[in-house]
Amino acid sequence: MAQKVFLTNLELDEAVKLYISNLGNLKSKKEIINTIDSRARVSSSPVYSKLSSPFYNSSAMDGIATLSSKTFVASDRNHIELIEGKDYLVVDTGDPIPKEYDCVIMVEDLIKVAENRVLIYKSASPWQNIRPLGEDIVEGQLIIPSKHAIRPVDIGAMLAGGVNEIEVYKKPVIGIIPTGTEIVEPKTELKVGDIIEFNSRVFSSMVEEWGGVPIRYNIVKDDYDLIKSAVLKANEECDMILINAGSSAGREDFTYEIIKEIGTVDVHGIAIKPGKPAILGSIKGKPIVGIPGFPVSAYFIMENICKTVIKGFLGLEAEEAKTIVATLSRRVMSSLKYLEFVRVKLGYVGDKIIATPLSRGAGATMSLVNADGVLEIPQNIEGFEAGSKVNIKLLKSEEQIRNTIVCIGSHDPIIDTAADLLHLKNSKYFLSSAHVGSMGGIMALKSGEAHIAPIHLLDMEGGEYNISYIKKYLGDKNVALIKGVNRIQGIIVLKDNPLELKSLKDIALKNARFINRQRGSGTRLFLDYNLKRLNINSSDINGYEREEYTHLSIAAAIAAKDADCGLGIYSAAKLMGLDFIPLGNEEYDFAVPKEFLNLDSIKEFIRILTSEGFKFELDKLGGYDYSNIGKIINT
Amino acid sequence: MAQKVFLTNLELDEAVKLYISNLGNLKSKKEIINTIDSRARVSSSPVYSKLSSPFYNSSAMDGIATLSSKTFVASDRNHIELIEGKDYLVVDTGDPIPKEYDCVIMVEDLIKVAENRVLIYKSASPWQNIRPLGEDIVEGQLIIPSKHAIRPVDIGAMLAGGVNEIEVYKKPVIGIIPTGTEIVEPKTELKVGDIIEFNSRVFSSMVEEWGGVPIRYNIVKDDYDLIKSAVLKANEECDMILINAGSSAGREDFTYEIIKEIGTVDVHGIAIKPGKPAILGSIKGKPIVGIPGFPVSAYFIMENICKTVIKGFLGLEAEEAKTIVATLSRRVMSSLKYLEFVRVKLGYVGDKIIATPLSRGAGATMSLVNADGVLEIPQNIEGFEAGSKVNIKLLKSEEQIRNTIVCIGSHDPIIDTAADLLHLKNSKYFLSSAHVGSMGGIMALKSGEAHIAPIHLLDMEGGEYNISYIKKYLGDKNVALIKGVNRIQGIIVLKDNPLELKSLKDIALKNARFINRQRGSGTRLFLDYNLKRLNINSSDINGYEREEYTHLSIAAAIAAKDADCGLGIYSAAKLMGLDFIPLGNEEYDFAVPKEFLNLDSIKEFIRILTSEGFKFELDKLGGYDYSNIGKIINT
Repeated sequence: MAQKVFLTNLELDEAVKLYISNLGNLKSKKEIINTIDSRARVSSSPVYSKLSSPFYNSSAMDGIATLSSKTFVASDRNHIELIEGKDYLVVDTGDPIPKEYDCVIMVEDLIKVAENRVLIYKSASPWQNIRPLGEDIVEGQLIIPSKHAIRPVDIGAMLAGGVNEIEVYKKPVIGIIPTGTEIVEPKTELKVGDIIEFNSRVFSSMVEEWGGVPIRYNIVKDDYDLIKSAVLKANEECDMILINAGSSAGREDFTYEIIKEIGTVDVHGIAIKPGKPAILGSIKGKPIVGIPGFPVSAYFIMENICKTVIKGFLGLEAEEAKTIVATLSRRVMSSLKYLEFVRVKLGYVGDKIIATPLSRGAGATMSLVNADGVLEIPQNIEGFEAGSKVNIKLLKSEEQIRNTIVCIGSHDPIIDTAADLLHLKNSKYFLSSAHVGSMGGIMALKSGEAHIAPIHLLDMEGGEYNISYIKKYLGDKNVALIKGVNRIQGIIVLKDNPLELKSLKDIALKNARFINRQRGSGTRLFLDYNLKRLNINSSDINGYEREEYTHLSIAAAIAAKDADCGLGIYSAAKLMGLDFIPLGNEEYDFAVPKEFLNLDSIKEFIRILTSEGFKFELDKLGGYDYSNIGKIINT
Repeated sequence: MAQKVFLTNLELDEAVKLYISNLGNLKSKKEIINTIDSRARVSSSPVYSKLSSPFYNSSAMDGIATLSSKTFVASDRNHIELIEGKDYLVVDTGDPIPKEYDCVIMVEDLIKVAENRVLIYKSASPWQNIRPLGEDIVEGQLIIPSKHAIRPVDIGAMLAGGVNEIEVYKKPVIGIIPTGTEIVEPKTELKVGDIIEFNSRVFSSMVEEWGGVPIRYNIVKDDYDLIKSAVLKANEECDMILINAGSSAGREDFTYEIIKEIGTVDVHGIAIKPGKPAILGSIKGKPIVGIPGFPVSAYFIMENICKTVIKGFLGLEAEEAKTIVATLSRRVMSSLKYLEFVRVKLGYVGDKIIATPLSRGAGATMSLVNADGVLEIPQNIEGFEAGSKVNIKLLKSEEQIRNTIVCIGSHDPIIDTAADLLHLKNSKYFLSSAHVGSMGGIMALKSGEAHIAPIHLLDMEGGEYNISYIKKYLGDKNVALIKGVNRIQGIIVLKDNPLELKSLKDIALKNARFINRQRGSGTRLFLDYNLKRLNINSSDINGYEREEYTHLSIAAAIAAKDADCGLGIYSAAKLMGLDFIPLGNEEYDFAVPKEFLNLDSIKEFIRILTSEGFKFELDKLGGYDYSNIGKIINT
């Protein structure tokens, strides 16, 4: 295992600057296109009008064109008669003014005395009511400068100015080469060990978004010569190459060696996380970037490096993302060695914008989907404390974030259904949910991170649900409860229950492989309550320590035969085609600070809960009783 | 002339609400497409994952997969030997973990004793260093809701979740019918009275930008039956029709009658300006909008009404434009009868954002190109005073506005050249210029509207240029002068000088049709100075009262034979292929408050002035002496 050492550990800004400077002037190509097809293209030379607009003097009113000198003596007491053909011409707005006339009198100032005669009662000044030639655009005037991204209104002005063709930057062709022996195309029959290749598709659509033309090559196996010949081919056919995976120092990572052999490596290793092992180089003057395989690492290399190069081909700067100031809901630590990108959820909760860090794993595709923004923790800073004011680069519009209900707490598939219906009914609103268990939800409300918290917390003493927890933990917060559903908790087992489990006791007796929910989740409390009631020792449950965060994760592990059983709700078992042994009912409700009940978004949420459409979906999922849904309980 | 009366004069919000409600549920169509082609499309149903990702347990480290129970007794003092094949399997990050193993020990914690044997010195806990199945995405999890505009990261997550096809809203097909007997296609041989048709091209690219598919039909002459059959055809082929021009009550405006005959008119006439005579209706349940012919009116109807309908087909809301608060540089009056849209230029001048109204003409295409934002003056408000704080809807990014040099004053073609080179050299910077004459420039600096003011002001007493004016009008402002060019002023005449004009005296003597520059312009001062010197009475100049705002406008009027002569600079005459009788040299410089000399943008501007590239362009234009260009003079 001859492991390579990264050449450098450059800071991001330094790396980009060095790379761009080494690339020198990118070989941007230009082409002539029709003005009418030029939307979103970028001008490569200034566009001057070739024609004045209007290109003749025209009437600015409906009325008559006449000669001002004939009107000079007209007054209230001295009406003057004008004769059509001899003294005037009837004109509508926009009609050209013949050379023999020099003014327009509007129809309201005319007294019609015969079909072809009018009287006027005031004099007209020269050029009155005439829209002069070139009023809008003068021949030779600059319409748009070079390096201008063309908008619809620019197309209008260019056509009006007689410019029917323009020179623009040719879209750079970006070759994308996915590599890896283990990666397979989507739609392939999957076997264990396969990894679905999707990075190249994300890159392709990013390239399109930035104005380039992607060429996605076939997957190349981890083989030095195969990859090398793919790179040589793409170097001929494209303006730039993105090669995915194979940029770190693992056993089969060839990108570095290949670029070194046939081109130049400028940077290998950047002090950012995720994204560290990127390679920046060139072959015959054309840029090539080795992009790490983890989707999140790849994303940040695309956004922070490739975008600058691709936009550079088009003469554009990569725009700075908009930033806002938010309050961190929890402490975020970071290594002193890296600039770290942390995905965050944002919520306008009360009068503050709260940023809550999402999963930091480099493979967490969904963290990119769910992220509202990115917190950058600079190198040489250990992190930020909870409550710090931090700058967040926005990934969504402020408007969208402002209209998002932040929902943190226990998981149930009905949350996804409610989120979808809310947005479907009124696309202004969004519901974003984080699954941290019921107690996590209570804590989120306590620290002002969330608008609502779905909970199902059984009082071990009274056997009552939710209200005692709100009183105990949120007594000072004035929190109400929106009633949700009664749902069935039970043991999820494989189809046809091969171990013939009938109760919690059987799990211990038959040493079945169990998979548990995390501490603080309502389901965990439900389990512990019942174990205690039945006098079962948790150490007798094989797998009691193995934790998952959602009902669906439990069901998925059982479906994959990684565990024999776990506790969860009926709908999760049904979704995965598993069997289910009911243990009891529980109340799954939404805790909400009373002040938020007045928000339009929360009102809409309650409307959705009580709608027929939602109840229809609940019936489809199965196992829910919604007779009290939407009722507000004061605690 | 049977003139129709507008049915209504509804407020904009009311009109849109009524129209949308009358249209009811738009007949949005849906289609199934490949996920990899779904960028910027809009989901029409929620997308749930069909597969967990990863879909098997995999190693989170390079190391060995083993069974935790075999490691429990390992310690610093009790090394345990494991044998490959029997006790462990070598795994790299991402490799699947076979069912018989339940943990991974990383390579750093292994002591290799033989090719297939390792020692371990601490115990491993179950599921340690294993990335569990579904860690990123769990089967059945919501990836994106309905009505979600798909981004590259969403494509990644959907493919990872096994979703290879999705349902999206079909792009609505929008038929665009240009009508008018006087309008002609671009590239046509033009004759007086022709109007180049470009609105339909602007509409087409707006439709594309909003996610629709435009079909642009051929131009239809002003004929009831021809237009009617075009509308019927488009109604069959499209989801919505935009019919351009013919929406007001002029002699040949048929749109209203045709929609009334074969469909329903919901609204005719909206209390906005520009855009008042729009018609909102439907034919067989499909929307049809009659859009006024003036380009600016058309633009606001598209933005404020058609966008809402077209986005509605896609399940989207038209986003609210971003607004900023700016200070109005001058008074803007408005009718109480209309909501008025006023295009403004914005400038970050000093510590304020200054909004300066642009031309309010409904035909001023360039005002849309040049606008940075839109000031909406509500109905029932008479306008705003200079100095008011007003909300401006942004048309460009704040970043771009922040990097724009606001240049107000005298016109010269070299301003366009400098603007282009500035942006070409460093695409971050922009120069926006308004041509209001030298004195207008002085006044703009005085009221803090501009960064620089190009001026050429001759002191009638001393015969000196510019400095005395700065002292007189901007004495309190600490203003410097950036030296520009010496340029030749003279009489612009037709090619070969048919009237054989040799001097200003000849203009009076031969009663040549003169065209003048506006009061406050340097050229006007130059003329008046010389008339006085030569003892010529301005009333002896035929056309002394006829004013234009730029050298190019003067030249264009002469080229079109609308005037015989005018005063202007050599380069303008040359651009239009006209002849030129030199009268004298003048100094065209840039007044600039000293505080702005430290702005990066102004520094870049001075670098451009002194660059070889700029001097090359000056030589090409002709008639400029640039020996002092870029020098800073303290006044």
